[in-house]
Amino acid sequence: MAEAPIRAVTMDKVVALCKRRGFVFQSSEIYGGLASTYDYAHYGVLLKQNVKQEWWRAVLQERDDMVALDAAILMHPRVWEASGHLEGFTDPLVQCLGKCKKRWREDELRAQQLGSEHAEGEIVCPECGGKLTEPRQFNLMFKTHMGPVEEEAAVVYLRPETAQGIFVNFRNVLQFARRKPPFGIAQVGKAFRNEITPGNFIFRTREFEQMEIEFFVPPAEAEQWHRYWMDERLAWYQRLGIRPQHLRLRAHGPDELSHYSSATSDIEYLFPMGWAELEGIANRGDYDLRRHAEFSGEKLEYVDTATGERYIPHVIEPSAGADRALLAFLVDAYDEEEVEGRKRTVLRLHPRLAPIKLAVLPLVSREGMPERARRIYEELRSAFFCEYDEGGSIGRRYRRQDEIGTPWCATVDGQTLEDDTVTLRDRDSLEQVRIPASRLRAEIERRLAEPWAPPAAPRS
Amino acid sequence: MAEAPIRAVTMDKVVALCKRRGFVFQSSEIYGGLASTYDYAHYGVLLKQNVKQEWWRAVLQERDDMVALDAAILMHPRVWEASGHLEGFTDPLVQCLGKCKKRWREDELRAQQLGSEHAEGEIVCPECGGKLTEPRQFNLMFKTHMGPVEEEAAVVYLRPETAQGIFVNFRNVLQFARRKPPFGIAQVGKAFRNEITPGNFIFRTREFEQMEIEFFVPPAEAEQWHRYWMDERLAWYQRLGIRPQHLRLRAHGPDELSHYSSATSDIEYLFPMGWAELEGIANRGDYDLRRHAEFSGEKLEYVDTATGERYIPHVIEPSAGADRALLAFLVDAYDEEEVEGRKRTVLRLHPRLAPIKLAVLPLVSREGMPERARRIYEELRSAFFCEYDEGGSIGRRYRRQDEIGTPWCATVDGQTLEDDTVTLRDRDSLEQVRIPASRLRAEIERRLAEPWAPPAAPRS
Repeated sequence: MAEAPIRAVTMDKVVALCKRRGFVFQSSEIYGGLASTYDYAHYGVLLKQNVKQEWWRAVLQERDDMVALDAAILMHPRVWEASGHLEGFTDPLVQCLGKCKKRWREDELRAQQLGSEHAEGEIVCPECGGKLTEPRQFNLMFKTHMGPVEEEAAVVYLRPETAQGIFVNFRNVLQFARRKPPFGIAQVGKAFRNEITPGNFIFRTREFEQMEIEFFVPPAEAEQWHRYWMDERLAWYQRLGIRPQHLRLRAHGPDELSHYSSATSDIEYLFPMGWAELEGIANRGDYDLRRHAEFSGEKLEYVDTATGERYIPHVIEPSAGADRALLAFLVDAYDEEEVEGRKRTVLRLHPRLAPIKLAVLPLVSREGMPERARRIYEELRSAFFCEYDEGGSIGRRYRRQDEIGTPWCATVDGQTLEDDTVTLRDRDSLEQVRIPASRLRAEIERRLAEPWAPPAAPRS
Repeated sequence: MAEAPIRAVTMDKVVALCKRRGFVFQSSEIYGGLASTYDYAHYGVLLKQNVKQEWWRAVLQERDDMVALDAAILMHPRVWEASGHLEGFTDPLVQCLGKCKKRWREDELRAQQLGSEHAEGEIVCPECGGKLTEPRQFNLMFKTHMGPVEEEAAVVYLRPETAQGIFVNFRNVLQFARRKPPFGIAQVGKAFRNEITPGNFIFRTREFEQMEIEFFVPPAEAEQWHRYWMDERLAWYQRLGIRPQHLRLRAHGPDELSHYSSATSDIEYLFPMGWAELEGIANRGDYDLRRHAEFSGEKLEYVDTATGERYIPHVIEPSAGADRALLAFLVDAYDEEEVEGRKRTVLRLHPRLAPIKLAVLPLVSREGMPERARRIYEELRSAFFCEYDEGGSIGRRYRRQDEIGTPWCATVDGQTLEDDTVTLRDRDSLEQVRIPASRLRAEIERRLAEPWAPPAAPRS
């Protein structure tokens, strides 16, 4: 990561804003926190809802070759035998034999100390310099028991990926939806991985949310659809305001590929800690359907009743992390600048991602302005998320809205009481225009429907 | 349940429709299914999203005394000591000593065989008549291990309710949101209970989704807020189309109350199997905040900086099940009737809950009608979920939309090609009106914003 351009925004600044303004809290904080586990607070909940909604809009609502699914987190244990997770979803675990007894991922230490995870040579504990045990393969699936007995027969796992819920429902979807490849199944849901070394705030956590598509295609079309989905998904992040220079596509080398994949490319984002994966787009071939057919004894293939043609579709999998996407949107939106001699922090979120679309503010707390502003707020809030705020100076209230990314503020002032117009302030340009209060809703809806790009001003 | 009025709709009919039309599938079905676990399919995903969105709209978006939260499923294990779940969240488990060896909930068997769960007397295995073991207390929390070791120190639980995530974040929310009671924290998320006897389709499952509010109030106002939330939540179900005669409020008797509650009322719905809980509305007093303060050593109280007043707020908890609510909406919407000599099945869902708002259909697949219909569909689908369907007779396509609850169908016919009007068919009244295609979007949006009630025709 030595080649990564330095970014002015640091993770510490983003984490501090998230806590201060109510986006993300450390989980179970009053008990000292639970390692690498986080709770979304008010604005984080709304932001995440918007991220997921924009994903659903792009991959489902505005297409007609996709159906939705929401499979349970707990699945039949045979699923993980067929998928290969029970056997192969492991990381090499080593433990320090010296003072600290800490546990590490052997491949990560090897890469850090020797430059490559495949390099030969001795590695030591980075904490205390102690010798390390031989690596053993540690399975990353969380295990629990279902039903009122703790015996082997009752073992179930928390799913480590949502994808398998799609594969085991392939036949059901084919039947009810009468689909013919190419078509896809899209799903958003929690997954769990007992990571040895989670970290970087909400970038890698043991409990996380995925947004996954399994796109089933005729085998001969797999490569072209793989390309299609790379372009499509990269464009999605850019449309939602991520700067092109902070995104790149990186193809996996042959030694990085998962057991099921013939080709994978990652969409990477330039986080403060360096380039890291935002979304993986894999060509899974027919691996999963073939394995589940074998393990279940069911026929998982597509049969064209007209032509008699039958085949196992190949699968292209765009697999995104909702928490990572949210973090990337926050990092890319974070900005500090001088305005009229005062520093302001501003989240330049795409308006459709912003938790609050409009703040309605009385200029001062008298002369009927609060009453008029409240009425406007109450009329508009059924259409989109609004806030009403009368506490403190108007400048301070603007800064608060800037920090949570609110794209527009409508201010009720003396003139409002005469001609019922309000000023509408833009978060980024700071431009204020005067418009009739009665036109506010249409104006905000018009702006929300427009394409949007972040200000071009140079930032790092 | 002997007094329950008989309903024409049976659970079997609803389950069959859910499978046939792609609302709900048995989980891991190709492996024989996982007991009482279900996956939401396409229309089920959309319906559930709409149920949750209407909940958020009512409890968050259109109020200003509520903030949102989305806490992690995995929490610090001390949380469950403080909450009382580790000790007290148990069911009495008995096992058959006879032939079948099955496991049962002792209190349920007692109620079935002796008329009350507190009755004295001998109960036997309902399957084979065998004798039963003495009951032992079985904890309903799913247990797993976090981090790369399976030792006692690493034990964590899947949360059995979302509520505790709210209590442990009370202080954080108070700080960032500068709130003063009365105010609430609202949350939607998965919870897990290792039920001994789950059942009745998605009514009682081991993995389920809750929609919970913890509403913090000055102690003296607790009773009035308890009443307020009963009314408010009952009205929510009715506004979304559930018939008043299928809803009732039932206060818990003193022997039913949870350890934390001084008063609880359930909103019950008349399911095919009888009256059963849809949502519990409890007065939890200061139990939770007091316990967490005690266990964490933190001060969890409200301090009014102006007056110096300080107190531990009391808590009113409206706790709804998203899956149960969805099931109630489906059951209440399910109808069969004769139309022009043919039977039709129709889901009379509230239009805002309906998965698809509008189907755009060419009358026949020729003369340019499919092209015109597709263009209309593509223009409208960014505004709300639409479908385009050209396969089969128009009557058959209407029936398909009726079964998935689509409130309106726009049909493109010969006249459309002349004057660009379409017919707009209403799912319930079957009335068709002709309107310009260019006015479709505004007309659907107008209808979606209107209050709606199910047809008054007598149904059981």
